Amino acid sequence: MRLAILGMGHVTRALLQMLAERHADLYRRFGLAPRVVAVADTGGAAVHDTGLSIPELLAVKQRGGSVSALPGVGLPGLSGKRVLTECSAEVLIEATPSRMDAPQEALGHLQTAFCHGMHVISVNKAPLAAALPALRELAAYNRVEFCFSGTVGAGTPVFSLAQASAAGDEVLGVEAILNGTTNYILHQMHEHGSAYADALAEAQRLGYAEADPSADVDGIDAATKLVIFANLILGRAATFADVEREGIREIDPGRLRAAEAAGRRLKLIASCGETLRVAPQEVAVDSPLNVSGSLNAVSLRLRYGGEVTLIGRGAGGPETATAVIRDLVNIWQRIGNSA
Amino acid sequence: MRLAILGMGHVTRALLQMLAERHADLYRRFGLAPRVVAVADTGGAAVHDTGLSIPELLAVKQRGGSVSALPGVGLPGLSGKRVLTECSAEVLIEATPSRMDAPQEALGHLQTAFCHGMHVISVNKAPLAAALPALRELAAYNRVEFCFSGTVGAGTPVFSLAQASAAGDEVLGVEAILNGTTNYILHQMHEHGSAYADALAEAQRLGYAEADPSADVDGIDAATKLVIFANLILGRAATFADVEREGIREIDPGRLRAAEAAGRRLKLIASCGETLRVAPQEVAVDSPLNVSGSLNAVSLRLRYGGEVTLIGRGAGGPETATAVIRDLVNIWQRIGNSA
Repeated sequence: MRLAILGMGHVTRALLQMLAERHADLYRRFGLAPRVVAVADTGGAAVHDTGLSIPELLAVKQRGGSVSALPGVGLPGLSGKRVLTECSAEVLIEATPSRMDAPQEALGHLQTAFCHGMHVISVNKAPLAAALPALRELAAYNRVEFCFSGTVGAGTPVFSLAQASAAGDEVLGVEAILNGTTNYILHQMHEHGSAYADALAEAQRLGYAEADPSADVDGIDAATKLVIFANLILGRAATFADVEREGIREIDPGRLRAAEAAGRRLKLIASCGETLRVAPQEVAVDSPLNVSGSLNAVSLRLRYGGEVTLIGRGAGGPETATAVIRDLVNIWQRIGNSA
Repeated sequence: MRLAILGMGHVTRALLQMLAERHADLYRRFGLAPRVVAVADTGGAAVHDTGLSIPELLAVKQRGGSVSALPGVGLPGLSGKRVLTECSAEVLIEATPSRMDAPQEALGHLQTAFCHGMHVISVNKAPLAAALPALRELAAYNRVEFCFSGTVGAGTPVFSLAQASAAGDEVLGVEAILNGTTNYILHQMHEHGSAYADALAEAQRLGYAEADPSADVDGIDAATKLVIFANLILGRAATFADVEREGIREIDPGRLRAAEAAGRRLKLIASCGETLRVAPQEVAVDSPLNVSGSLNAVSLRLRYGGEVTLIGRGAGGPETATAVIRDLVNIWQRIGNSA
């Protein structure tokens, strides 16, 4: 399948590396031979209908340059949207930065792809949180596949678990830790008695948190993922505006000590029952949701099967790239191919 | 789809209840309308080509009788194998008791079904641990579906998780707690300082352990499940004889105290790396594998994505029945139907 990739951040770079490394493996196991025919970054695009050279793409990014500088294939200044209308790709991988305050550009990429009959894999959460119900309808109308398993839990197959559970049972509700940064901060505050500011600084030093940590500590990232989950798994036509949200910025250390005294720990829990909510909540110390460090955890409450919990890394370039490959394999199989 | 069910234990009774309760739901969501056309217990069978009455089947079992006593449809003394050759079912659900020492009868059921072009859902582990590679080949040769997700983790979709992980990543190895009874016993010994005999007696009182607890405490049940997992997920043509096995019967309380002093806990771990092995092993107290009570946990070691762990109940009639329904929905969809 021919791929167009918009955005050249750490997920895309890990994906390109993996596509090169696993070329023979993907063909052997699934009969799948992906080819990258278009890429775009902030400087422009590179397009070649018989496939771009992955080592050249990685080398130019390694040097801090734009793919549009590549001789013969580079197109400086070409927008992502123009790339989609002018290349021959069958699948768009939307991997531009997730900007909750400005999802329009990425939304435009998805809409353009759908209307041109392209399947879409999005690792960008922002357009999904803004308009997932409308996007799913547009994909269905154009009879194309729309996958986004890398948007929640990175490589951990959260959606697959939930879909499998829903096939035989009924998902009544969800409680989840969907943001590793805040879990790391709360874990440091509980287990090492760190102050909030020190735990945040440590998370920033380790690369878990951004210089501006608002998206994590105000619960925006978790709320975005919760919206996607609620749409896909619980059939709620929800958007970001439907989530009640409380972050951990103002967390009172006394509240943590009180929880500890009761054999409990404070976690930033994203929950979906009657309402959609992100807020600090207590969990028992032996609860499967009491995960350490920057791990994520999703716990489904089932009608017959009780609680089922999936724990894994919730972030990372290579981890998220495996979700893109999983989506690609799924699209390939759903449109009627198998090895 | 028309179902033949062999075995009328607690899983079958929960399944019948669920098929009755969820009839409209399954039709609405999947276009699936299962009908039970044959059942068998130790006393004989009941067969009716347009469908047996579920309330009547449940009532006769409630009274402690055999389905073969049902007027008009009962066939005293008819064997499971004869049922399969004489009914019109498209799917066999093999739910006779799992007997590792005598898997032949259940093996015969599966083989007969395959050779008559029936799809098979097995919740019976014994024939699978004895001969899974040969059974999978026989199913493939006869071009029928063969599902057994209820054999490992009851309703927890362990195989779905592993298959989804394997699609985008590579499963390098597995560490798992596949037996809830031994986990309960070890948990009691660790957290309440119970003696082995007392913890076992308590597990028996709660219905977790049988009067003869060998299958659990000698690691036989866990080894059986490990074999199934290794075949399906890791592509190993293994049988029960390939598993190194050490149970918890002779466990030294001193070993538990030493583990605790090092911040660790002893668990009966089923692992699949170079070799297949079931043995008591230590895990860190904050490891996702340190699950409490009778929970099960499966941890996959992935090439790119690190550890992914799924935690859920590992036993129970209704739980296992949801796995049968999931398998049924999967078969229905794989043979080309959707709602």
